[in-house]
Amino acid sequence: MAKKPSLPKGTRDFSPQEVAKRLYIMDTIKSSFQLYGFQPIETPSFENSETLMGKYGEEGDRLIFKILNSGDYLNKVDEELFSLKDSAKLTPKISEKALRYDLTVPFARYVVQHQNEIIFPFKRYQMQTVWRADRPQKGRFREFCQCDADVVGSNSLWQEVELVQLYDDVFTKLKLEGCTIKINNRKILSGIAEVIGADDKLVDFTVALDKLDKIGEEGVKKELLEKGITGQAIKKLQPLFSFTGNNEEKLISLSQLLNTSDTGKKGIEEIVFVIKNIQSLGLKSSKIELDVTLARGLNYYTGAIFEVSAPENVQIGSIGGGGRYDDLTGIFGLKGVSGVGISFGLDRIYLVLEELQLFPKKVLENTKVLFINFGEAEALYAMQAITKLRKEGITAELYPDADKMGKQMAYADKRQIPYVVLAGGNEIEAKTFTLKRMKNGEQEVLTMDKLVNFLL
Amino acid sequence: MAKKPSLPKGTRDFSPQEVAKRLYIMDTIKSSFQLYGFQPIETPSFENSETLMGKYGEEGDRLIFKILNSGDYLNKVDEELFSLKDSAKLTPKISEKALRYDLTVPFARYVVQHQNEIIFPFKRYQMQTVWRADRPQKGRFREFCQCDADVVGSNSLWQEVELVQLYDDVFTKLKLEGCTIKINNRKILSGIAEVIGADDKLVDFTVALDKLDKIGEEGVKKELLEKGITGQAIKKLQPLFSFTGNNEEKLISLSQLLNTSDTGKKGIEEIVFVIKNIQSLGLKSSKIELDVTLARGLNYYTGAIFEVSAPENVQIGSIGGGGRYDDLTGIFGLKGVSGVGISFGLDRIYLVLEELQLFPKKVLENTKVLFINFGEAEALYAMQAITKLRKEGITAELYPDADKMGKQMAYADKRQIPYVVLAGGNEIEAKTFTLKRMKNGEQEVLTMDKLVNFLL
Repeated sequence: MAKKPSLPKGTRDFSPQEVAKRLYIMDTIKSSFQLYGFQPIETPSFENSETLMGKYGEEGDRLIFKILNSGDYLNKVDEELFSLKDSAKLTPKISEKALRYDLTVPFARYVVQHQNEIIFPFKRYQMQTVWRADRPQKGRFREFCQCDADVVGSNSLWQEVELVQLYDDVFTKLKLEGCTIKINNRKILSGIAEVIGADDKLVDFTVALDKLDKIGEEGVKKELLEKGITGQAIKKLQPLFSFTGNNEEKLISLSQLLNTSDTGKKGIEEIVFVIKNIQSLGLKSSKIELDVTLARGLNYYTGAIFEVSAPENVQIGSIGGGGRYDDLTGIFGLKGVSGVGISFGLDRIYLVLEELQLFPKKVLENTKVLFINFGEAEALYAMQAITKLRKEGITAELYPDADKMGKQMAYADKRQIPYVVLAGGNEIEAKTFTLKRMKNGEQEVLTMDKLVNFLL
Repeated sequence: MAKKPSLPKGTRDFSPQEVAKRLYIMDTIKSSFQLYGFQPIETPSFENSETLMGKYGEEGDRLIFKILNSGDYLNKVDEELFSLKDSAKLTPKISEKALRYDLTVPFARYVVQHQNEIIFPFKRYQMQTVWRADRPQKGRFREFCQCDADVVGSNSLWQEVELVQLYDDVFTKLKLEGCTIKINNRKILSGIAEVIGADDKLVDFTVALDKLDKIGEEGVKKELLEKGITGQAIKKLQPLFSFTGNNEEKLISLSQLLNTSDTGKKGIEEIVFVIKNIQSLGLKSSKIELDVTLARGLNYYTGAIFEVSAPENVQIGSIGGGGRYDDLTGIFGLKGVSGVGISFGLDRIYLVLEELQLFPKKVLENTKVLFINFGEAEALYAMQAITKLRKEGITAELYPDADKMGKQMAYADKRQIPYVVLAGGNEIEAKTFTLKRMKNGEQEVLTMDKLVNFLL
């Protein structure tokens, strides 16, 4: 007896209904990417290990899925190393390839490798699967799809403006109104650290600040003290704890706090450019909000930092994020190429649309009409009609076997097919079709032409 | 200095142009799959090794990419086994997951695992990546996309009829006219083996017959003798070597050859059903042809066998194939579920369309209009117009930096953007836009409304 089959943890099968809903989201994102002039690229699922390793920190390296070399892979491992039985040391000898961990590093590799064919500034989008050997939990999987748009080769802040518009465009199309696009800037965070004399503790400082929502003002202050930031420095931070009002008001108090830091002032200038222009252009359904606690992968970003929150009535983490990184391709030897990009969290957006019941009904529609099978001659008559319907783009099916009527009707019902056609000897003789509405059982007799017109 | 990045062998990056062309093919196939009532599913990229191993023969097992366990994977390997330093024996201890090798076995696993949710007969399609550690060569990659449609849970031969129509539908939509859909039946091959008294040599016999095109009649006979098939048996095969004429004529001579084999007669009956009904329904641009040398994965198929050849003027192997397998899910403990399916060879179809120049020009069209950037105020004026154009679904872009005019025009040219808009101080004052055709340099001044109408 075969063992009951199962899936590796953190991976999923997608049923037709789930695929249809996921495709609805992905197609919506894709249409906005294209509307904004982004072009698709694709990269392989696995890369040479050296392309990926060392790019995501120690923790990241551990979470990368490694692929075992083919054939007699132990043959080339020298005896001494082998005898150590040390997993970490053996891995590079028996695995040369690894599954991609994100789309950013492969994109950087792509840009460097194809720099002579690419027309810069290069606006690319990429919607592909990535893999992480992370502990699976609700909404976190080991295999998931990333949807990224990035521009490389331009420092223009108009890109930041467009990326905010792009988020707004996608969420509006998905009828997910009331999203908040939070914006911050690495230079503002650096400026704050500078002003309080904690340049060297930027990460500690940011990690603590990021928890303001959860642990409150006193909690943050306690953590800062523990990390060795002085009480005097923390006092200077006071304006951040009473950081309220609209974006303009926040920018004014931030300007006062950072008036001695050139870096900080530069960061404010960049944010002002983005917010001011977004206000001139208008957003359709989202709002933009300055959030100085926003840090997201701080070591990575050099300018703008983005994060999107779902509407307030939904309890879920961020549904998108991104930012500017000024040396994306430097790791592969191409210096001075600035990039800025955003990402959509497909799985979370799916959960939000589900919770708010925002999936349009038509997403799940498939076959429009099922022809009942009464036997070989009748089936041929049905297939002739089906062939004509399909020519008109109408999705029609023949029930494949001449099973009992009840079984065939139950099939149409379960598949949520709205119409069935019954065509037996009488219909064949009269060259007609009996069309039955599954909803209420009403039926009418139609010619081929009328049937096409009805179902179109 | 960073090392020049490269890709693992047998894998590819796809440029925007390549992605666009691949998507054109995939979207065409997908639209036909949906029109015929097939529903999409997706399965994970990797499966538990036990799901895949032993399903593709010894050679197949060798070609499956194995994923190394995470963490200290050697920790659990016992000393004695480890000291053997035997790759084949160590693999199952340090690797529990493997990349999928095809879509058929994961589909069988899906059907068994979800048998209680699935509405049978289940018509599913799947377009996903698969991986094989095969020797890469022209048109053969280690990572490639499979496009499969299968029906499980019905023995009806109408499925075979529909799958032939489906091939014809896709190739017609792709303007790839003149494809030959070859059909055979495992039962015919068994019948022939039975008639010549070589039941036990079915595979040897079929492998030899399959080479008729390449090594000719004498070559095949020589190989059959070497495999231990008697001269007398080979004499009985003589009709197959002069197997010409249309499908009807071939079926008549086949009937004579197989008149003593019940299995053979059953195979003929099945083929007659498919060919007769296809003729009644008509094909749009392909032809159907009985080919008794067709064997494709003989051990797998139990009924119909399909293979598609590109039009005669193209030198390439098959661009699609499939067949009926009567016990797809038996390997996972669910007996008696018959399946029939076909597959499209995306990479080969791509090569054929490229060779015959059948990709429509519009596939490569992306951005319609580029706004030249003259500085901050002008850029905002441009962005206001761009925002309006995008609302109408017109793909418009702002050149991100206020670079020299020549550089911006060169960018539009290289990106093959057909129109640019120049809007400086005069235009802003007059609330107009100067539109320039890249093709001939002609330009005209338009209001916002006229600009939208022109570009729609």
